[in-house]
Amino acid sequence: MANRPVITFTTDFGTSDWFAGTMKGVVLRINPSATLVDITHGIPAGNIRAGAFALAASYRFFPKGTVHVALVDPGVGSQRRAIAVQTADYFFVGPDNGVLSWALRSEQVRATHSLENRAYVLLPISRTFHGRDIFAPVAAHLSRRTPIRNLGPPMRQIEPLAWPGPERVDGGVKGEIVHVDHFGNALTNLTERDLAGITGGPLRVQIHGKAVCVIAGSYDSVSRGNPVAVLGSSGFLEVAIRDGNAARRLRLRIGQPIVVKEPH
Amino acid sequence: MANRPVITFTTDFGTSDWFAGTMKGVVLRINPSATLVDITHGIPAGNIRAGAFALAASYRFFPKGTVHVALVDPGVGSQRRAIAVQTADYFFVGPDNGVLSWALRSEQVRATHSLENRAYVLLPISRTFHGRDIFAPVAAHLSRRTPIRNLGPPMRQIEPLAWPGPERVDGGVKGEIVHVDHFGNALTNLTERDLAGITGGPLRVQIHGKAVCVIAGSYDSVSRGNPVAVLGSSGFLEVAIRDGNAARRLRLRIGQPIVVKEPH
Amino acid sequence: MANRPVITFTTDFGTSDWFAGTMKGVVLRINPSATLVDITHGIPAGNIRAGAFALAASYRFFPKGTVHVALVDPGVGSQRRAIAVQTADYFFVGPDNGVLSWALRSEQVRATHSLENRAYVLLPISRTFHGRDIFAPVAAHLSRRTPIRNLGPPMRQIEPLAWPGPERVDGGVKGEIVHVDHFGNALTNLTERDLAGITGGPLRVQIHGKAVCVIAGSYDSVSRGNPVAVLGSSGFLEVAIRDGNAARRLRLRIGQPIVVKEPH
Repeated sequence: MANRPVITFTTDFGTSDWFAGTMKGVVLRINPSATLVDITHGIPAGNIRAGAFALAASYRFFPKGTVHVALVDPGVGSQRRAIAVQTADYFFVGPDNGVLSWALRSEQVRATHSLENRAYVLLPISRTFHGRDIFAPVAAHLSRRTPIRNLGPPMRQIEPLAWPGPERVDGGVKGEIVHVDHFGNALTNLTERDLAGITGGPLRVQIHGKAVCVIAGSYDSVSRGNPVAVLGSSGFLEVAIRDGNAARRLRLRIGQPIVVKEPH
Repeated sequence: MANRPVITFTTDFGTSDWFAGTMKGVVLRINPSATLVDITHGIPAGNIRAGAFALAASYRFFPKGTVHVALVDPGVGSQRRAIAVQTADYFFVGPDNGVLSWALRSEQVRATHSLENRAYVLLPISRTFHGRDIFAPVAAHLSRRTPIRNLGPPMRQIEPLAWPGPERVDGGVKGEIVHVDHFGNALTNLTERDLAGITGGPLRVQIHGKAVCVIAGSYDSVSRGNPVAVLGSSGFLEVAIRDGNAARRLRLRIGQPIVVKEPH
Repeated sequence: MANRPVITFTTDFGTSDWFAGTMKGVVLRINPSATLVDITHGIPAGNIRAGAFALAASYRFFPKGTVHVALVDPGVGSQRRAIAVQTADYFFVGPDNGVLSWALRSEQVRATHSLENRAYVLLPISRTFHGRDIFAPVAAHLSRRTPIRNLGPPMRQIEPLAWPGPERVDGGVKGEIVHVDHFGNALTNLTERDLAGITGGPLRVQIHGKAVCVIAGSYDSVSRGNPVAVLGSSGFLEVAIRDGNAARRLRLRIGQPIVVKEPH
């Protein structure tokens, strides 16, 4: 761990209230030398899958020892557990509702603990803001090298979140849109490996059964205003419009099926 | 004060321009070791009460010695004064228009000074951006332990901002909505103490004279999509819809009266 | 350069995805002691001029040695070059599409290099996220005092971006609106110097050929709800409405011509 350990935040808190700032105050009271980084506070309210995807797409670019806090927590105040997970390179802290699980798919989990030790949280715990009262202080303590086993009893398993697996179809593969970004690019669940079995010339992308574009090497393989699919920076196939907004123009939404086919 | 003193920002500057970033540049030129935290830049433009509420809800979670800058300043360039306040645990910096006053309600004020000493500001002072030219440099100097008395003449009193006090009504208490958060939860000015006098079973919340919900222990005391009132993390009663947006569904707005009554 | 060198970000990435956060992770892996400041991630998508203006308005308020990263890059993945520029006081990093050029108008350029040395970037370079793979790591290396000449071959010239120069007209000067800020104030390209030749009493501002307001010393020279033009904090004449939103009320847009005339 670095001398100035990093703590990241991925939440649906928005930035119009004091919620994210308050968590940082709590962290800095416990570890004044922490470096705090917002991944995003713009996850749609309560959308666990969107939070899981953002964390999975970004966590591995941070220094070893980083503590990642992911809070999309529609069940705050209910009986869902609060957990911390230690992997070979990182710590993850959040509710046990699947929001951590897509990031953990490619990590070696060393330990998982339920955050039940009241010595490491802010008392009294409020009913509605566990980010401030549980997750922020726990993240701060982990960044100070408090052993994860001190935080509460070990757990064997966490709540999984199903990853929408691609499916073989006649002459191609079928996936779905899993994220629409700020530029209107639609990210799918299809990776380079998923497309490897399909061969022969430029692959065609179909949405709603209609051919939309081909897969190319970069946005500027097509002229301005035209659709194109590329393997994006997160490793997934994404549908874009050069210098335009694909989601708006092509009416793309999370959950929509997408089919990649070989040429005729 | 910590070795890496914290400076926070609560403003109505938004994040689409360069305003918040520029203030941070000014601070770092004066104190390169400051830790900078955004509480929020999303206060509605010119809404002093919203800024005062956000600061009051968050400031006490920061380390002792933190310098809190609060800028909702529709009178920038006019004759309103710029002030710094030292309390037992914190510093507060902002325009003298009430934006600091709700936080100061629960602080022991040690000293208040008018920011008139031109040695601690950026010259020439622009007519429209005192955040950059006065408040950021003053906050940076305070974070370096410049004595507050150096900043300008002492003041006996600051501009107050009336706190909307709750009112006893027949069989209950009447308050109002003071904030609507990112999730659509409506925070009221009613605290646990305000409700203490009303007894006998689950308390009922009325808005527009109609019963809306009861007060419960947590969001999941009701089933999904149903309204509920809970004592929120800031210490105030808030009206929510489980896994939904109460402000939108129930048409809740800042300033609306709300009545809490005992059961029949 | 300070012990904790500053790196700033001015982008059109928005804050709803993980893009800005991921760049910071990449920086902190290379230079854990960097101080990271967002100028803004709210530049309209692909609007190079808006990014150039935000950077030019803010960069000089940061400590000497600051590395400024500006990313408005509709041509990512195409053949446009990636560059780093060293001036007397700062470093600038971004695509060679003009986004850096308005800031550089008032800087003494010492060296410009094309970012072609693959030893200082993240491999493999993705097709769509050079912020993460090229610009963030290069900024981090510059903040660690890697000599700029190590990054790639020197360049003689960068892509310019035309600054819309003001024009003399009968009895006045003609400029245009170059930015509309969060408060609805419309910034023009007219500076105090541009107005110096026009004399005799309060100058009148015309938009669409109609007199809109006079130029005054501060917002409160007029009563609430009335329009006024002032020399704003960035050094440019701006049109505002006291305690109101000028862009909305007067239908002001980027690119609109504005004329300043002497009184009759």
